Amino acid sequence: MSFNTFGHLFRVTTWGESHGPALGATVDGCPPGIQIDPTAIQHWLDRRKPGQNRFTTQRREPDEVEILSGVFEGQSTGTPIQLMIRNTDQRSKDYGEIAQAFRPGHADITYWQKYGIRDYRGGGRSSARETAARVAAGGVARAALAALVPGLQIIGYMVQMGPQAIDRSRLDLEEVERNPFWCPDATTAAAWADQLDGLRKSGNSVGAIIEVVARGVPVGLGAPVYGKLDTDLAAAMMSINAVKGVEIGDGMAAAALTGIDNADEIRMGPNGPEYLSNHAGGILGGISTGQDVVVRFAVKPTSSILTPRRTVTRDGQETDLITKGRHDPCVGIRAVPVAEAMMACVILDHLLLHRGQVGAGPRGQIG
Amino acid sequence: MSFNTFGHLFRVTTWGESHGPALGATVDGCPPGIQIDPTAIQHWLDRRKPGQNRFTTQRREPDEVEILSGVFEGQSTGTPIQLMIRNTDQRSKDYGEIAQAFRPGHADITYWQKYGIRDYRGGGRSSARETAARVAAGGVARAALAALVPGLQIIGYMVQMGPQAIDRSRLDLEEVERNPFWCPDATTAAAWADQLDGLRKSGNSVGAIIEVVARGVPVGLGAPVYGKLDTDLAAAMMSINAVKGVEIGDGMAAAALTGIDNADEIRMGPNGPEYLSNHAGGILGGISTGQDVVVRFAVKPTSSILTPRRTVTRDGQETDLITKGRHDPCVGIRAVPVAEAMMACVILDHLLLHRGQVGAGPRGQIG
Amino acid sequence: MSFNTFGHLFRVTTWGESHGPALGATVDGCPPGIQIDPTAIQHWLDRRKPGQNRFTTQRREPDEVEILSGVFEGQSTGTPIQLMIRNTDQRSKDYGEIAQAFRPGHADITYWQKYGIRDYRGGGRSSARETAARVAAGGVARAALAALVPGLQIIGYMVQMGPQAIDRSRLDLEEVERNPFWCPDATTAAAWADQLDGLRKSGNSVGAIIEVVARGVPVGLGAPVYGKLDTDLAAAMMSINAVKGVEIGDGMAAAALTGIDNADEIRMGPNGPEYLSNHAGGILGGISTGQDVVVRFAVKPTSSILTPRRTVTRDGQETDLITKGRHDPCVGIRAVPVAEAMMACVILDHLLLHRGQVGAGPRGQIG
Amino acid sequence: MSFNTFGHLFRVTTWGESHGPALGATVDGCPPGIQIDPTAIQHWLDRRKPGQNRFTTQRREPDEVEILSGVFEGQSTGTPIQLMIRNTDQRSKDYGEIAQAFRPGHADITYWQKYGIRDYRGGGRSSARETAARVAAGGVARAALAALVPGLQIIGYMVQMGPQAIDRSRLDLEEVERNPFWCPDATTAAAWADQLDGLRKSGNSVGAIIEVVARGVPVGLGAPVYGKLDTDLAAAMMSINAVKGVEIGDGMAAAALTGIDNADEIRMGPNGPEYLSNHAGGILGGISTGQDVVVRFAVKPTSSILTPRRTVTRDGQETDLITKGRHDPCVGIRAVPVAEAMMACVILDHLLLHRGQVGAGPRGQIG
Repeated sequence: MSFNTFGHLFRVTTWGESHGPALGATVDGCPPGIQIDPTAIQHWLDRRKPGQNRFTTQRREPDEVEILSGVFEGQSTGTPIQLMIRNTDQRSKDYGEIAQAFRPGHADITYWQKYGIRDYRGGGRSSARETAARVAAGGVARAALAALVPGLQIIGYMVQMGPQAIDRSRLDLEEVERNPFWCPDATTAAAWADQLDGLRKSGNSVGAIIEVVARGVPVGLGAPVYGKLDTDLAAAMMSINAVKGVEIGDGMAAAALTGIDNADEIRMGPNGPEYLSNHAGGILGGISTGQDVVVRFAVKPTSSILTPRRTVTRDGQETDLITKGRHDPCVGIRAVPVAEAMMACVILDHLLLHRGQVGAGPRGQIG
Repeated sequence: MSFNTFGHLFRVTTWGESHGPALGATVDGCPPGIQIDPTAIQHWLDRRKPGQNRFTTQRREPDEVEILSGVFEGQSTGTPIQLMIRNTDQRSKDYGEIAQAFRPGHADITYWQKYGIRDYRGGGRSSARETAARVAAGGVARAALAALVPGLQIIGYMVQMGPQAIDRSRLDLEEVERNPFWCPDATTAAAWADQLDGLRKSGNSVGAIIEVVARGVPVGLGAPVYGKLDTDLAAAMMSINAVKGVEIGDGMAAAALTGIDNADEIRMGPNGPEYLSNHAGGILGGISTGQDVVVRFAVKPTSSILTPRRTVTRDGQETDLITKGRHDPCVGIRAVPVAEAMMACVILDHLLLHRGQVGAGPRGQIG
Repeated sequence: MSFNTFGHLFRVTTWGESHGPALGATVDGCPPGIQIDPTAIQHWLDRRKPGQNRFTTQRREPDEVEILSGVFEGQSTGTPIQLMIRNTDQRSKDYGEIAQAFRPGHADITYWQKYGIRDYRGGGRSSARETAARVAAGGVARAALAALVPGLQIIGYMVQMGPQAIDRSRLDLEEVERNPFWCPDATTAAAWADQLDGLRKSGNSVGAIIEVVARGVPVGLGAPVYGKLDTDLAAAMMSINAVKGVEIGDGMAAAALTGIDNADEIRMGPNGPEYLSNHAGGILGGISTGQDVVVRFAVKPTSSILTPRRTVTRDGQETDLITKGRHDPCVGIRAVPVAEAMMACVILDHLLLHRGQVGAGPRGQIG
Repeated sequence: MSFNTFGHLFRVTTWGESHGPALGATVDGCPPGIQIDPTAIQHWLDRRKPGQNRFTTQRREPDEVEILSGVFEGQSTGTPIQLMIRNTDQRSKDYGEIAQAFRPGHADITYWQKYGIRDYRGGGRSSARETAARVAAGGVARAALAALVPGLQIIGYMVQMGPQAIDRSRLDLEEVERNPFWCPDATTAAAWADQLDGLRKSGNSVGAIIEVVARGVPVGLGAPVYGKLDTDLAAAMMSINAVKGVEIGDGMAAAALTGIDNADEIRMGPNGPEYLSNHAGGILGGISTGQDVVVRFAVKPTSSILTPRRTVTRDGQETDLITKGRHDPCVGIRAVPVAEAMMACVILDHLLLHRGQVGAGPRGQIG
């Protein structure tokens, strides 16, 4: 990852600001001959788009993707795919005050200090709108994965909002699409709705934890020791706005385990080795084991809130700032489809890297 | 990060296996004219080297670094610096059984499956011995930082071992060098010693959490949106052996906060803006704020233990495996100097990237 | 350079096909605070655009650039600059026959063989239309260079068309803008006009040699040994459509020289060392000397010609192919502004790389 | 290519100075399971090593390669391969004068100006000794190519020394190994011997042109538009010391051709399309055609000569400089094995890139 590009062979460069005319992703290195269906990409974008219920920003953006290059007669040609999304509902007048004062907890101040210039309208480049481009690129990655790894599934969901985590005994992935939180636990989803209504009305916001699982990932993906699959997943998730922590498998809780407990023991199954547990989250030594790849990350609460916070202006004046405008009370909600997209991009990239260096499929047999 | 290289402008490629003749780091892109003192690099290596007390592996390695290139009359020339460390205490006979059976929780199985060949002696490339090369490279990075950012400090320490965390009210960085755990809380260090003696004797191991803080980091480092400072730090730490989670600032706990609590409010101080708290861990929008940069990560327990665990052999036979040989009961201990080295490399790299794109120093003034 | 991206810190990714809806360049890593004037970028595009006289393709394209991101209130923000150019004069019906048969000397056949799919309309991605995106990106690079290296000049011109070279004793850069060949020798330009009229009427085409000179390049740019300034210039020029050879300074003719003749002797001038000749083309050991950087490259004749050539179809049928449509009889002409753009991008990139690693300006003094 | 690394997936980082303790190459991304035979690598090094006849430098270096990592039981493991060559015949006293004065035509002055420090002993990093590391890395690439593309051949030879070119009607590749010039024309080789004896005795040197041909390169290698096969070959050759020009196929002479002449016409052969000529040098649109890949490059005369040349010292004093020490009168001779090595590395890299993005083999069939 460097500047605005991520990926090694499947490389995505995003561009665009919250209130500019458009934003998008330049996707390079896609395998040729992949069916790229604009409606399929739109499907993923629709999951992320704002204004769909009272728990996300009320900005109305159709988030319609235009494919400007790299697809011919419905198939990828192996040349760069340009995905463009027009911004349509900018209301720059909302952002007058923010042009001068820096929102505490927001990138306003560091962009200004680093570059000496910033597009303050809607957060400019630091806006979560940038993630629409990731989702579009992820749609391309999913299309390629569907062709190259049939059966691979990527599923994201929210497992904690504020202090309240789901009850894993009730985890039901069927529930994920049935509530506005992508929550796999219906009971907890109902509680979150109450909680978030309260926070929203009081001009506050809240953080969240998202989990993304990839099933059916081939054995052997990941390039130790600095291109490990988990290294790239950690980078991919940490690059999402407002993310402050990333875990693989047991994550931070692995610290509390002993070696006896942590060992994912192995037995032979009908199709090769099988693991009796998955503390590792599907990755050992940076290489996929064939088990579910499990990633979790924490999203901090939205920093744009209606409650006054102490800050300073560009002129060095101290002030109290209320952020008006249309903001997500829990930006973690919309991070779910974004994280799925990042997972898809990373897995595809490592699949291509692996077949570049090693060839198709893993090389070492067991049994 | 890709394959065995990390960094953008300050680029480190490590090479070598646990039981080969040598290992090392090829450091490219170091600024010229930096005093590179072999004894200073050796100082950092000595902190990591094995066999220093009963809580680390009893393998005896002097870990003496040889500088083979890139330094002339005591100064870096701007050309690649080759740092080589000879392996001297290989005992390959220890590893006979591991040539056939895969240690649960270890990279043995995935290296085999991916590549179809592996140097099983001591874990080969997946051994924590690789981190000696990181520490040597970090010594070069520290020398460059000392010249370019006087006053910058990087301090790592252990904050949790197994289930027991330090008491932050007792945190005293003076303590860090006084106990074998790099623990900043003397009371907890004593408890850990008891705990680890017990685990070691029972043929078990345990995980840990490490915290690394960089003080005096200039404002403005980090290249959004995919070359963020926190993105690269997350990748750097996750690339260390056995790491399963990475946090910046409040990390996973940020999920439980509200926007009101999470906002690091700002006031004007004598030298510019000052923050009233540091939930952000010194990074906003991927760019350093000038506050302490705070990173934490979890290390899982060593998978090589003396307690039998169920596994399979390359031939597909089920077996119970005991890992003899000399292993760290808590590999997290020796991760402390490694993490400091990674922090140094990442900060230097971003310093060079920033001055490449933007010029020396931040551009935007406040007040 | 990799896939569709070139540059290290100033990175340009071009996208788009000849007959798609649009093409463009994603420019990442531009320094912030640079005046980006769309009319200035348009100025460079207008020099390259087709249909300006009878010696270039009669396709009519306004080549109007839209800046979709990265510029705020007339200045670069340091975030990606998206430059988009709409295609308006596609006539896909011209290309029916080429969908089946491969033009000899053209990328038709290799794109098909490599990818198994190609956008055959107008050559798709392999069309020289891609170079419009380079020229737009070069306009951004020129703007940055104007701010960072006042006085730097980049001038391209044609020095040979077919077998006829200019007479260097008549070289006058004032002439370059006065004839349709960017020829610095008015007499030769007139001869070329006659020659090209004849070739065009007979359904033929011809090659050319272009020279590009950069004046005022600072001393010290270039990163030996694989990021040399001349290495990157050679790659940049060779990446332009139809280029078959690249020379720095004396180029291929250096082979015939002796060491006595080739030495660019040095004397002290009022502002430091001065060279008595410039066989080296302004680059020694991959690093700029401060003299004129001189690059030359050969462009092969357009392969799309009205004279039948023997070839095969996708079905393996042998056939004779005449390429109708609108083609440049000497594609070298329009390569001149493209090469200037590539020179600008490479120099800016190396300027940023140098200040990243070494700091602003050269470090070693003489005298 | 950047700093001291070249390649995308097969990545080579060279390190070391002429008079340091050692130099070498860190080779990353090699496919696993490749037989790496130290004696085979030594074979290539022996072809390049100095002191083999009166036409190359009299420095005596055994150039023995040590493989420090990445090879286990005779096979590559997929992890970094460290190739180290000790310097044994440094005579630093030869270089006293050069510490102060800059050789005209040499990198002495630009290294000093760029970095403010240089290892002047034997040219330090800018010495042609660096190319030994390339040849060693090329040996690894050849081993991988032998496994992946049986039948692929890479042959380099000298086609011009000073003003005298070979007579192509006498070209006989059997001759290449029979004379000290790698000359495929015995008559010309004899003439060159006389010529070079004269130049050497008069304290002069001379340039040369080298040609390298790769036979049996698969169709479809090359990643348009900035990772073209010819782009990377041009960069690879231009990165070799003293190279001033690079040509693919007809090279600079393509400028003089018409489109009718330049078209490599195509007929169907028993195994697919066949070309009736090879003006293109085996590359169309940046992608290999399956014909011979033909690259030529010019090497300027050695700048270290015994004839006094005017120059300046670091203190700004004007002086006349004679370069004593042991130098190649025609450094082009030893560039032959170096260029072969670069060709091998580039082709392997593109083979891996192609199979990463597209899969094994070309995708589009003809007939």
